Amino acid sequence: MAKKKNAFYAQSGGVTAVINASACGVIETARKHKDKIGKVLAGRNGIIGALTEDLIDTSKESARAIAALRYTPSGAFGSCRYKLKGLEENRAEYERLIQVFEAHNIGYFFYNGGGDSADTCLKVSQLSKKLGYPIQAIHVPKTVDNDLPITDNCPGFGSVAKYIAVSTREASFDVASMCATSTKVFVLEVMGRHAGWIAAAGALATDEKIDLPILILFPEIPFDRKTFMAAVRAKVEQYGYCSVVVSEGVRDPDGKFLAETGLKDAFGHSQLGGVAPVVAGMIQQDLGYKYHWAVADYLQRAARHIASKTDVEQAYAMGEAAVKMALQGKNSVMPTIDRKSDKPYRWGVGEAPLRRVANVEKFMPKSFISRDGFGITPKCRRYLEPLIKGEDYPPFKQGLPQYVVLKNLPVPSKLEPFELR
Amino acid sequence: MAKKKNAFYAQSGGVTAVINASACGVIETARKHKDKIGKVLAGRNGIIGALTEDLIDTSKESARAIAALRYTPSGAFGSCRYKLKGLEENRAEYERLIQVFEAHNIGYFFYNGGGDSADTCLKVSQLSKKLGYPIQAIHVPKTVDNDLPITDNCPGFGSVAKYIAVSTREASFDVASMCATSTKVFVLEVMGRHAGWIAAAGALATDEKIDLPILILFPEIPFDRKTFMAAVRAKVEQYGYCSVVVSEGVRDPDGKFLAETGLKDAFGHSQLGGVAPVVAGMIQQDLGYKYHWAVADYLQRAARHIASKTDVEQAYAMGEAAVKMALQGKNSVMPTIDRKSDKPYRWGVGEAPLRRVANVEKFMPKSFISRDGFGITPKCRRYLEPLIKGEDYPPFKQGLPQYVVLKNLPVPSKLEPFELR
Repeated sequence: MAKKKNAFYAQSGGVTAVINASACGVIETARKHKDKIGKVLAGRNGIIGALTEDLIDTSKESARAIAALRYTPSGAFGSCRYKLKGLEENRAEYERLIQVFEAHNIGYFFYNGGGDSADTCLKVSQLSKKLGYPIQAIHVPKTVDNDLPITDNCPGFGSVAKYIAVSTREASFDVASMCATSTKVFVLEVMGRHAGWIAAAGALATDEKIDLPILILFPEIPFDRKTFMAAVRAKVEQYGYCSVVVSEGVRDPDGKFLAETGLKDAFGHSQLGGVAPVVAGMIQQDLGYKYHWAVADYLQRAARHIASKTDVEQAYAMGEAAVKMALQGKNSVMPTIDRKSDKPYRWGVGEAPLRRVANVEKFMPKSFISRDGFGITPKCRRYLEPLIKGEDYPPFKQGLPQYVVLKNLPVPSKLEPFELR
Repeated sequence: MAKKKNAFYAQSGGVTAVINASACGVIETARKHKDKIGKVLAGRNGIIGALTEDLIDTSKESARAIAALRYTPSGAFGSCRYKLKGLEENRAEYERLIQVFEAHNIGYFFYNGGGDSADTCLKVSQLSKKLGYPIQAIHVPKTVDNDLPITDNCPGFGSVAKYIAVSTREASFDVASMCATSTKVFVLEVMGRHAGWIAAAGALATDEKIDLPILILFPEIPFDRKTFMAAVRAKVEQYGYCSVVVSEGVRDPDGKFLAETGLKDAFGHSQLGGVAPVVAGMIQQDLGYKYHWAVADYLQRAARHIASKTDVEQAYAMGEAAVKMALQGKNSVMPTIDRKSDKPYRWGVGEAPLRRVANVEKFMPKSFISRDGFGITPKCRRYLEPLIKGEDYPPFKQGLPQYVVLKNLPVPSKLEPFELR
């Protein structure tokens, strides 16, 4: 019995429309290997659940509930923004993790997150060597930002990209109808503080059959007001209107976030967030066009109702692959999505060492951004298009998606409480 | 030949996810009665197309293109915000309309819009009597605001309501995952300057099976900061987080829009629009909770991808009924949606005289808003639930909805140009 170890699974960082599909892949695959893996214990609120010994017994959930994770957005076990310090800086945390792992017979550590989480996972993977506790740590990739290295793309991104492409197409149709007497410019703010992958997806709204005037503002390109206004004016003069997809992370030439440069509240405090109203206001000042703006915020990453089928499949596959890697005795790795071809799109599961993943951010390559800085290149389009392909609607009842809420029953704790720093 | 009159059809005011379904209903029904109705000529950009003799020949569109209107959001012929003055104030406009109608043998006038448009339609319906030109004017109801009288609900509303209910559910799941260490309050701004129907739909996100902490801010209820903050705090203390759905039209006790009370841009101009950041900022000031906010804006009314099937069917039925009323010789009327029962939901097509529709706004009745002012009553829920029922997905290709762009070929003009006032 001692040989059959339990697994720990946790979700980290901002959640996505498909991170639960990865959880589903982990749990369903582990359940298929009950000879080798005991229970899957989930951390309530990510790694914090491990530190505070707040574990969820996923074996109490029905097969049906676990299957429903595949189509339920958000983090079913709770997520967190909490980065482990280095072993030297906070040895107590690592010793605590080992205590909890030992107390609950945990031999596998699956951590589902982005770049910061890969760093946490890497640190845990070193516990075997550094503190002599045998653990296999596998990172399950997830991030709407699509900024993890090595993997061709990240689960979570394809669905946001689809949401942004669909929404930009729909809103552009709307503005086109109104522009003769009303709104001429529509500004949509999307996520992506450092990398412009999500903003780039706005450009997919237009294609050979449906020609829409769309300008993208990437965080990779310093905002030049004059050039931008000239581009907006040109679109409005040609089409009668223009849609702008702006990344929240766009900065002015001095490196300051545009979102921080403008708005102040009634008390004079500068109002964070909201680059869309700033850009829209500038357009009105400079060009006098009537505008509307939207900020998609959480709606974009939670929109499971319009998830990409490709993304759902990949998210599941990453969870499944992580368990298989664990069963093969691997440690300190992350499954990756390897692209085999663009058209037809084919992909397989690869593997990356965690030390090459942790704390590395992948930005939009220059060859993906059009020369004027406001669009994407055909190469970028070839990359993005397959990622939004296919629909995978959740079941609806009474007009609403039937997402699952798990029981999330706690594992009785065995240790003294632990104070988070 | 002189006896067979052409029909004029135009779209007015803010467009919706299903106004083209009404256009589809008008055109397909007219095409079935070619013995009585000639061509359907659409006004390019609403009534302006009639005034400027900018007419679109819809007979040049294929049956397939017209059928595709049923699943294409926005206004396929262009819409406008333009209200005809009274006959006494601008007789020239009415005389021009008659010129255009005569020149193009138009005997039926179908106007697809909200309360203001009903007023325009009413004025046109009086041309027969007042200026001796025989015309039958039928109003086709449309408004996301759901504020037309007599009809049980308005085409366009059900789909926005569904979008808001689904998005609120999805975003609430997201916040629930993050609230232990990050965002505790999510604020979603929705449309509805005077009536809280759209905001009310946010409350549908929670039901018997899925319990979510949601507070609604209605334009019908003056914003009381202290009471609201107490309600937010109570939700966060009970659930760990809270979602707020705020109508753009919420006002403070002095009647001033909240959206106008706060933000100023870098130049000190007050920034219009954006009540969500104002409310979110207040929550942080008063309670210190980390927040996120979203402004759905055009996304909500353009989101055909998540349209309500009920809404699509009703929008089509209104267009169809308008043509049938015209064929029955009616004038100055609007087809209505008459509710027969809540559960099971049954409805039929009724009829309202335009003079009882024009310029009348229907607000949320007091019996629909919960006593604390932040939610809906069971009665309101019974009213709203059927309206978001059913999905009616558009066809997708390469991951994107295949909306139609019509040819919109102009009818050769026969008159001198006309200057809009």
